[in-house]
Amino acid sequence: MFENITIIGCGLIGSSILRSINKNKISKKINIFDKSKEVLSFLKDENLDANICTDICLAVKNADLIIIATPLSSYKEIFLSIRNELKKNSIVSDVGSAKKEINKIVENINLKDVSWIASHPIAGTEHSGPKAGFAELFEKRWCIVSPSKKSKKEDVQKIQKFWELIGSKVKIMSFEEHDRILSLTSHLPHAIAFNIVRTAINNDDKFKQEVIQYSAGGLRDFTRIAASDPLMWRDIFIDNSENILNAINNFSNNLEELKNAIEQKNGDKLLKMFSSSKEVRKEIVKAGQDTEKADFGRKKI
Amino acid sequence: MFENITIIGCGLIGSSILRSINKNKISKKINIFDKSKEVLSFLKDENLDANICTDICLAVKNADLIIIATPLSSYKEIFLSIRNELKKNSIVSDVGSAKKEINKIVENINLKDVSWIASHPIAGTEHSGPKAGFAELFEKRWCIVSPSKKSKKEDVQKIQKFWELIGSKVKIMSFEEHDRILSLTSHLPHAIAFNIVRTAINNDDKFKQEVIQYSAGGLRDFTRIAASDPLMWRDIFIDNSENILNAINNFSNNLEELKNAIEQKNGDKLLKMFSSSKEVRKEIVKAGQDTEKADFGRKKI
Repeated sequence: MFENITIIGCGLIGSSILRSINKNKISKKINIFDKSKEVLSFLKDENLDANICTDICLAVKNADLIIIATPLSSYKEIFLSIRNELKKNSIVSDVGSAKKEINKIVENINLKDVSWIASHPIAGTEHSGPKAGFAELFEKRWCIVSPSKKSKKEDVQKIQKFWELIGSKVKIMSFEEHDRILSLTSHLPHAIAFNIVRTAINNDDKFKQEVIQYSAGGLRDFTRIAASDPLMWRDIFIDNSENILNAINNFSNNLEELKNAIEQKNGDKLLKMFSSSKEVRKEIVKAGQDTEKADFGRKKI
Repeated sequence: MFENITIIGCGLIGSSILRSINKNKISKKINIFDKSKEVLSFLKDENLDANICTDICLAVKNADLIIIATPLSSYKEIFLSIRNELKKNSIVSDVGSAKKEINKIVENINLKDVSWIASHPIAGTEHSGPKAGFAELFEKRWCIVSPSKKSKKEDVQKIQKFWELIGSKVKIMSFEEHDRILSLTSHLPHAIAFNIVRTAINNDDKFKQEVIQYSAGGLRDFTRIAASDPLMWRDIFIDNSENILNAINNFSNNLEELKNAIEQKNGDKLLKMFSSSKEVRKEIVKAGQDTEKADFGRKKI
């Protein structure tokens, strides 16, 4: 299907794609570009089966599929560097967590004879860098594919097949729908996790050490999410700001309501609020049962 | 040390204590009381080594140690029922997540020749009920012990020893300090988790099913916390309302600051905020290394 694949940016996600392509023998040739010399040197030492390039133009020259796996803020520069080097009829995709703004950039660049089809594998860990990558990261995970208006049907099918070979389940979705849904399932939770860690651990607080020591009561679970790559998240918050601000405002209004119920010691209202959250959990577990192993929560020791 | 222990309330925590006492052969006799007939019948069927009582007065009559493992709102009724049945020099403890208000209740009841020493094992799962209990729940977990002003030193040592035999590490702390620290490490995170689930999953939203489907991007982790027992949490929010409201207010102020940074697309500020959260995570993992196996986060598939 693809004989020559190029991955631009080889951190957690990019290196996991590389490992998975190798493991599943998806392409004859894989080219890697990363602007960090340390990343390239790590990949060399790992003896992964890839053509490691220090020139982004050479990296994409003969590729049928190019996957951009860098922070969103690098896309513009990358597209400007590679636009005239791309092979006719090649497909360019990515792994970014926000779509609408990026799509505007690509439209403005006006790629000729090249298909731009955005992808977003919903997979990751709190660790970053190529050392944290592993071939199974995408297995049984959703990957959202968002074609542009100009995308050819057969190219969309090709990219869908690619993610399926990597182990993912694919859902086709518009840019707008993607950004709206992800603002609720991922961006709002990250905003809140960052904020709660910042609130609970105040360096000036005399109990700081105790809060860290006894964080197993709930806080610890948030710190995992809040430990994700800051640079990646900065870009997501800027690119999907409208949806995220909307979600934060709804969150704040609901929090005011919760505060009022606590202030009034309104037990019935609190019980009702908490019970409805428990119901949602059941729906999520139910939805997850036929999608991936329900290994939620912390393992029993 | 204790020859006769009574557990009042046999849900997740109470039944786990029972199983651990059995497993570690900590007491010659164990009495169980629970007001739910279903719970008692489940415990009978499990063939656990315990004297199952349907009368709370008979259950506590000869006990050296009584552990209350019910929601906080039941304490008053329980103390009123058992106050005249308690053996001289017995110790009464609990497992509750808030301390100050409960201590007032106990002080007002004015127990004679009985030691009240509050306990709070920081352990649990998102499941409730005796079926969810297991003997190892407390292993290597912190248990905070809060003596009252009248507690005898040797009784505090006894209860400390008890929790250590159960597998916990014990920290002695005042009621006030406990409630302040737990409001940050546990109560605020739960308030926020309940609130985020309520915000993200709006039944009127046309994307409700999609939000559930793609919840693996962060939201799912919050729903686990938000699935905890609603009745237990109602009581905690009412009992520790002052500290919790204070924490929520700080959280809201920080969230406004985050919102402003997003609105202004202030990348430097966002990066700074997110980087400091990552640092906190490191401190928590570091603090956890010598306290329990650092099995944070989701297992790789």
